[in-house]
Amino acid sequence: MPVGTAASVKGIPQDTLEELGAQIILGNTYHLYLRPGVETVRKMGGLHGFMSWDRAILTDSGGFQVFSLSELRKLNEDGVTFRSHLDGSSHFFSPESAMAAQIGLGADIIMAFDECTEYPAERARVRESMELTARWAARSKDYFEEHKQEVPWGQASGVGRQEKQLPHHCFAPVRNDNDLRDSGRSTDRWATDGHRLAPGSTQSLFGIVQGGMDRELRKESAERTVEIGFPGYAIGGLSVGEPREATREMVEWTVEHLPANRPRYVMGVGTPEEIVEYASLGVDMMDCVLPTRAARHGLLFTSEGKISIKQARYAQDAGPLDPNCPCRVCQRYSRAYLRHLYASNEVLAQVLNTIHNLSFYLDTMQRVRHAISLGEESRFLSSVWSRPQT
Amino acid sequence: MPVGTAASVKGIPQDTLEELGAQIILGNTYHLYLRPGVETVRKMGGLHGFMSWDRAILTDSGGFQVFSLSELRKLNEDGVTFRSHLDGSSHFFSPESAMAAQIGLGADIIMAFDECTEYPAERARVRESMELTARWAARSKDYFEEHKQEVPWGQASGVGRQEKQLPHHCFAPVRNDNDLRDSGRSTDRWATDGHRLAPGSTQSLFGIVQGGMDRELRKESAERTVEIGFPGYAIGGLSVGEPREATREMVEWTVEHLPANRPRYVMGVGTPEEIVEYASLGVDMMDCVLPTRAARHGLLFTSEGKISIKQARYAQDAGPLDPNCPCRVCQRYSRAYLRHLYASNEVLAQVLNTIHNLSFYLDTMQRVRHAISLGEESRFLSSVWSRPQT
Repeated sequence: MPVGTAASVKGIPQDTLEELGAQIILGNTYHLYLRPGVETVRKMGGLHGFMSWDRAILTDSGGFQVFSLSELRKLNEDGVTFRSHLDGSSHFFSPESAMAAQIGLGADIIMAFDECTEYPAERARVRESMELTARWAARSKDYFEEHKQEVPWGQASGVGRQEKQLPHHCFAPVRNDNDLRDSGRSTDRWATDGHRLAPGSTQSLFGIVQGGMDRELRKESAERTVEIGFPGYAIGGLSVGEPREATREMVEWTVEHLPANRPRYVMGVGTPEEIVEYASLGVDMMDCVLPTRAARHGLLFTSEGKISIKQARYAQDAGPLDPNCPCRVCQRYSRAYLRHLYASNEVLAQVLNTIHNLSFYLDTMQRVRHAISLGEESRFLSSVWSRPQT
Repeated sequence: MPVGTAASVKGIPQDTLEELGAQIILGNTYHLYLRPGVETVRKMGGLHGFMSWDRAILTDSGGFQVFSLSELRKLNEDGVTFRSHLDGSSHFFSPESAMAAQIGLGADIIMAFDECTEYPAERARVRESMELTARWAARSKDYFEEHKQEVPWGQASGVGRQEKQLPHHCFAPVRNDNDLRDSGRSTDRWATDGHRLAPGSTQSLFGIVQGGMDRELRKESAERTVEIGFPGYAIGGLSVGEPREATREMVEWTVEHLPANRPRYVMGVGTPEEIVEYASLGVDMMDCVLPTRAARHGLLFTSEGKISIKQARYAQDAGPLDPNCPCRVCQRYSRAYLRHLYASNEVLAQVLNTIHNLSFYLDTMQRVRHAISLGEESRFLSSVWSRPQT
């Protein structure tokens, strides 16, 4: 899942994401809660209407970013008081308020409010944190069940609902309806949006497993989360500084304690090799800022290994970034041009680099799905590992 | 002509420029000379190959930016010594070296090396400067005629030459030709590039009229430039701080002293109203950073007047930016979303705002051409002036 923190995958128009084949993107509740605010998004019909994106969206609970970004956070059984990283204003997130925010944002999949346990941590601290997450999961579910009908689906207004009638790469004909902004509350505009149109349809709330790097606590957390019961399960508290082998061990261990007939989601991973590996362990969903953030720093993933496009060796390299990549960047531009854009601080560097990295990630997962459908996971996995990585 | 200073219209992929209907873009010789350097661009087949843009390109002479951007410039009859704004290194531009640079960059239209007279200036100073420009114009043409066959057309290599066989919005099939970067020198890749393929085809060198805000000197400059003889003529030295009425007067006056059967180009203008007005005076070409630069500052041109999208009044405005605009931004996104992107410093704000402003400008000129073809310049002009402008 490409990460679109503030209702935008940085630098990439939504039609480009569609062309890249993104089926679902992620938004960050903490950021959206602070700016533009839940009420604004709710009034626009939720994130789908606000950002004009009809495919799936997942929002995180806000918990992870409250812990990592905000100043002066204070945690107790009830929830977390924190200060905005934007203006220092004081706010409070609890399982209930985090659910209210995510219902207002209206993503398809929302996440229980959890505490992301720091690494490293003493076992007693990990247990205490894991148990808090379990209690918060139950409160998250309780609040969600009581309020899930408040999701603002069907209230979309304004622009872009006609867009689906045309291929996105075509210019729509000129229209002249000055009234558009004042009307447009009819739900029939959502006619092709799938489940969001169905009467009484609601979001899916996923639970989150914590438990640090402790097998026993991971198992207990998984069991307690499954006991509460969710339509999907995430493995949180990884990619927090632990060795990669520990991540892998926890993923492999925890996945086995989650129902195989529910989506299993590892939060915040990983490299192309890692997402292939975790998929082979039974993971269905992953999100990571790596492809988009690395792109902004000129680090590009290719079938021949990683490339740091800022290097002078590419200054007169007329070849494509990745000769095996079908993306619009590799089909049109040379390494020399991409290197020039990066060296000149041109915004187009970020745009094109991000398009390529997302294409590489999404194509990787496409190939994983294909391999799974052929029953060839292990062979595919070994072919990935044999790739040269610089 | 959208401005693509460093071989990129800031933030906009080339396929988007094509969809917007841009027929020609402008590159800045001063910037490209400093970075990535003329030799790099030449080796990629000129700007067309370097930036993968097969439509027309115009480069300025570098003179204007040497005068406005560089430190410690020293001018004499021979040329200008200046220091790079990037690293302080010392460089020299003369009519001959500016032509050599522009031949190496390989744009379709290149400009004589001129001195852009400052404003305000004493009449004697304006005359002296205008006469220097006239002598430099003759030297520019002499050098160009001797060296014009050195244009690197037909040397394009690498990526994107196959692109034309497919619509740009489609993904090309995966290819696996690792040899691409090492081969690709065949001129047949330029087969659909029009005049650039014709044997012996060369660039078009345009002359530049100076003369400050003085009618007599403008007339003399025009006559001397026409006497040297160029396939097109530019009016330079405007938009340098003079009152708008002076700009208009100089355009109207100077255009009448330039041949109507040659392209007449006013450099560095203007607002949407101004470009319509100048077109009605007989101007064929204009370039301006205004649509792209204003977009980056959240200032958007619409059929209902200018909009500063950062204003809080748009925070929950579900309507399109411009209800009369067919661009992909107005067809898909709300003012509320655009306002959020700008307020959140999202790069997508710049991308979408620029797409809209360029669309507005290019559509404006499209309507101008249509009005001219119908012989309705004056009626169209008056309808433009009656628009509400905030």
